Amino acid sequence: MAKDFPTRSENYSEWYNELVYRADLAENSAVRGCMVIKPYGYAIWEKMQQQLDKMFKDTGHVNAYFPLFIPKSFLSKEAAHVEGFAKECAVITHYRLKNSDDGKSVIVDPEAKLEEELIVRPTSETIIWSTYKNWIQSYRDLPLLINQWANVVRWEMRTRLFLRTAEFLWQEGHTAHATADEAIAETEQMLDVYAEFAEKFMAVPVIKGIKTPNERFAGAVETYCIEALMQDGKALQAGTSHFLGQNFAKAFDVRFTNKQGTMEHVWATSWGVSTRLMGALVMAHSDDDGLVLPPKLAPIQVVIVPIYKSEEQLKQLDEYANNIKSSLMKKGISVKYDNRDTQKPGWKFSEYEMKGVPVRLAIGPRDMENQTVELARRDTKEKTTYQAVDIDLKIEHLLEQIQDNLYKKALDLRSESTHHANSIEEFNDILNNKGGFVFAHWDGTAETEQAIKEETKATIRCIPLNNKLEEGKCILTGKPSKQKVMFARAY
Amino acid sequence: MAKDFPTRSENYSEWYNELVYRADLAENSAVRGCMVIKPYGYAIWEKMQQQLDKMFKDTGHVNAYFPLFIPKSFLSKEAAHVEGFAKECAVITHYRLKNSDDGKSVIVDPEAKLEEELIVRPTSETIIWSTYKNWIQSYRDLPLLINQWANVVRWEMRTRLFLRTAEFLWQEGHTAHATADEAIAETEQMLDVYAEFAEKFMAVPVIKGIKTPNERFAGAVETYCIEALMQDGKALQAGTSHFLGQNFAKAFDVRFTNKQGTMEHVWATSWGVSTRLMGALVMAHSDDDGLVLPPKLAPIQVVIVPIYKSEEQLKQLDEYANNIKSSLMKKGISVKYDNRDTQKPGWKFSEYEMKGVPVRLAIGPRDMENQTVELARRDTKEKTTYQAVDIDLKIEHLLEQIQDNLYKKALDLRSESTHHANSIEEFNDILNNKGGFVFAHWDGTAETEQAIKEETKATIRCIPLNNKLEEGKCILTGKPSKQKVMFARAY
Repeated sequence: MAKDFPTRSENYSEWYNELVYRADLAENSAVRGCMVIKPYGYAIWEKMQQQLDKMFKDTGHVNAYFPLFIPKSFLSKEAAHVEGFAKECAVITHYRLKNSDDGKSVIVDPEAKLEEELIVRPTSETIIWSTYKNWIQSYRDLPLLINQWANVVRWEMRTRLFLRTAEFLWQEGHTAHATADEAIAETEQMLDVYAEFAEKFMAVPVIKGIKTPNERFAGAVETYCIEALMQDGKALQAGTSHFLGQNFAKAFDVRFTNKQGTMEHVWATSWGVSTRLMGALVMAHSDDDGLVLPPKLAPIQVVIVPIYKSEEQLKQLDEYANNIKSSLMKKGISVKYDNRDTQKPGWKFSEYEMKGVPVRLAIGPRDMENQTVELARRDTKEKTTYQAVDIDLKIEHLLEQIQDNLYKKALDLRSESTHHANSIEEFNDILNNKGGFVFAHWDGTAETEQAIKEETKATIRCIPLNNKLEEGKCILTGKPSKQKVMFARAY
Repeated sequence: MAKDFPTRSENYSEWYNELVYRADLAENSAVRGCMVIKPYGYAIWEKMQQQLDKMFKDTGHVNAYFPLFIPKSFLSKEAAHVEGFAKECAVITHYRLKNSDDGKSVIVDPEAKLEEELIVRPTSETIIWSTYKNWIQSYRDLPLLINQWANVVRWEMRTRLFLRTAEFLWQEGHTAHATADEAIAETEQMLDVYAEFAEKFMAVPVIKGIKTPNERFAGAVETYCIEALMQDGKALQAGTSHFLGQNFAKAFDVRFTNKQGTMEHVWATSWGVSTRLMGALVMAHSDDDGLVLPPKLAPIQVVIVPIYKSEEQLKQLDEYANNIKSSLMKKGISVKYDNRDTQKPGWKFSEYEMKGVPVRLAIGPRDMENQTVELARRDTKEKTTYQAVDIDLKIEHLLEQIQDNLYKKALDLRSESTHHANSIEEFNDILNNKGGFVFAHWDGTAETEQAIKEETKATIRCIPLNNKLEEGKCILTGKPSKQKVMFARAY
C-alpha cells in the first residue's frame, strides 16, 4: 500500500478511490466494472439494509424474489423503458460450454444457443409486471406492496467503486394500486422513508424533489428523488421513487375489477436505493485521515486499544478493558477490544482512524490506576480523559452527539454551498469557483436544459418539493420562468 | 385454483407441486427454470437466513460480496472444477442491444461482443480465490473466514420449485487456512452448524457423512454432507461442506509465508446451503391439508380468527383478540389477527391450514363471555378449549412442544425407514416396496457404485461419520467390504 494518501483539496477523486481501498471497503475485481465488497464495507451495507428493511416492513411492505434474467422481448414492451435500459446490458446467448477440440480450454457450445436471448436484469419492472398479471384480478388483491433485495447489472463504460459499477446491489420496491392517488401517495411515502434514512442514519441532509422529464426514469410518469451534496460541491442522487402511472400495467395488460365491477389498468410505483449510498456515506463525512462514520451505521462504534510495556501489564489491562467492553455491550454498543500483540498502538490508532470508528478509548497502566480512559472522537479529533465510572452512559450519550454533529456539519456545508444565480455568467462563476447547489431560473424546456448541461456540465438535480414560486427569466434564454430549479454538477 | 389437491399417497410429486403453489411459497416464472419466490415463501427463507447468518457470525465468519460474473478462463484453472461446472451454465457473450432495422424490436448488437465470455456464477470458488491471492501474503492474514449470500445459476434441464431451479439463492462460505488440519476442522464445524440448524430449527433430523469420490464436489478433496429423509422415502441432500485441500490455492497461486518464513499454498474450505432447504422443509412435515411449519421458522406462529354474526359482535371481539395478540407479541410470538370481513371463518381456517400456521385461535362471543379461546394445533389437528388467563405462557410452551413433536415425528419416520440389505435382491425389494435409507455393503469401487445406481436408481448418499466398521461382502460383486454405506433414491 502506497504511503501517500492525497488530501481532499489536492485531489478529491483520488482521495476517494484511495480511501475506499485503504478503509477496506471495496476493490475492483477481475471482471471489468464489477466490484468486490470487502467484509468491512459489507458490514456497513448490512447495517443500511437492516434499517431500510425495517422501515419498509413498518410501512407495510413484504419481500419477495424475482428472476435474475429477463427475456429480451420483455424489455421492448414499454416503449420508453427499452430506450433507457436495453442498450448497455449483459446479454446471455448460450447455455453451455464444451471442451475445445485441442482439449486445452472450454469454448461456447454453438449448439446451445438460446432461442430468445436473456438480459441480466438492469431493473425488474418488466419481469415483475409480467408476474403481477397473474396475481391481480380484483381490487381485493390491491395494494400489492413488494420489495426485492437483489443484484442488478448495467454495462457502464466508466465505473467507480460504489458510485457507478456494472453490477451493484440494491433494493427495488414494486407496488400496485387501484388508484392514481394511492400510487402517488406511495411514491411520496417512500421518498420520505429514503429522506429519513439518509438524514437520521447516514447523517446526510437531502433535498427532496422531482426530476425534469429529461432526467426521469425510463417508463415513469414522475420521478421523485433525494439529492445530497458531497464535500467537493458535487451533487449525488441518493435514491429515487417513481410514479409509473399505468405504463407497465398497459404494457403487460395487468387489469383488475374495481368495486363497481369494471375493469381498469393497475397503477404502479417503483423505488430504489443501492450500494451507491456507500459512496455518498464516504464522501459526505470523511476527512484527510480516512473514513468518518456516523455511529448508527458504524460496524464498530467503539474500539479499545491497550498501551502497555510488558505482558503482565497487558494482562491487567485486559481485565480493565473487558469490564468496560461488557458494560458498553450491555447498552447495545458494538465494541472491539484490540489487544493484538502483532501491531503497535500507533499503528492501531491510524488503522481505526482510517476505518472511521467513531470513538477510540486508549488505556494504559496509569489510566487503570486512576480509573480513567483517554477518549478520542473520530469526528472532531478531540481527546479527553474520562472517569471510568458510568462510562457506558457517557459514551451512549457521546455517540448520539457525534451522530448529530455529523449531520449538522453536513447541513452547514450544504447551506454554505447553496447559491442563487441570476445570469449564466454568475452561474458559471459559482460552478467553477465554489461548486454546490445553484438555484436558477429555467424556461422549462428540454432544449434549454440540454444546452445548459453542455455549456456548464451542470444538470437540473430536481425541482424541490414545495419550491417557492417566483417570476423570473431563464438564465440562458431570458424566457419567462415561474420558479428557480436546483442545478449542480453531479456524480 | 383447482379444487382437487392430491394426497401424498395418491401422487407425492403432484402433492408437492400443488402445495408449493397453494401455500403461496413460489411459482414458475416466464424465464425457463427460474422461480419467483412469493412473499410468504420468502418470509420463511428470511427466517432461515437470519438464523444461519447468526450461526455463521457466532463461529467467527464475516460476510462479503463477490462478482456475479466469472471470466470463462477462470473455470478452466482447476481441472476437476471445470468438468463439474463449466458445462451447463449461462454464458454472456455481448454487452449491448440495439434497435432492429425495422425499428420494431431490439436485437443483440454484433459490434458489442465480449473479448472473453463471462459465465454467471454457478459457484464462486474461482472468482473468490483469484481475489484471495491479493489478500493473503502471510500467516497473519489467516484464517480468512468469509461467507456470501448470493444468487447462482446452473442450467438445469429438469427443474422443480426449490428442489432444482436454474437460478437459486444460497450462501457460500469460502475460508482460507494455514494448515490442512485447521481447514478440516472448519469443514467439520460448518457441517455441525448445518446439522444443528436442520435439527433444531427445521425440525429435520439429518445424517452427517462424507460423499464417495463419485459424488464429491468438483474440485474438493473431501465432501461432507447432511442427508435428510423425505416422507416418500427419498433422500435429500440438505447441505454440503467441502475440504478443498490446496486445489484452488494452486490453481490461482495463492501462497503465504508461514511462521518459519517459507512459502506454502493456502488450505481451503467451502460450504453452502440454498433455497433447496425450502423444499426439504415442505416435504419433511407437510400433510394432505397443506404446509406444516416448525414454529421456529413460521412467519406467523399464531393466527386469531373471530367468529361473529354482527358488526357489533366483531367490534367486541376485536378488543378481546387484540388483548390476546399483544400479550403474545410481548413474548416475541408473531401473531396475525385476521378480522377481514371479505372471507368467512371456514375459508380462513383452510387458508391458514394450507399455509402451515402452527397455532390457530378461534374466538366467538361465547369464548369472550367465558374468557376462553378455541385452540387448534396444525401438527396434530387437536382442538382444545383454553382458559384465556396466562394464554401467552401456555402458547409459548405449546410452540416448543410443536417444534419438538415435529422433530420427533420426522425422527420416528426415519427410524422406521432405515433398513439393512444383505443382497441385491433384498436391496431392490426394500427400495421398491418401502423406500428409505438402505445400509448395505459395497466394495468401494466407483464402477460398482455406478452399476448399483443404474440397476436400482439408488446412490450412495454418504458414508456416515463414525460409521460402524464390520466385515462383509458387497451386495453386487460379493467382494470384501469393511463397512456398510448408506444408499437411497434421492432428490
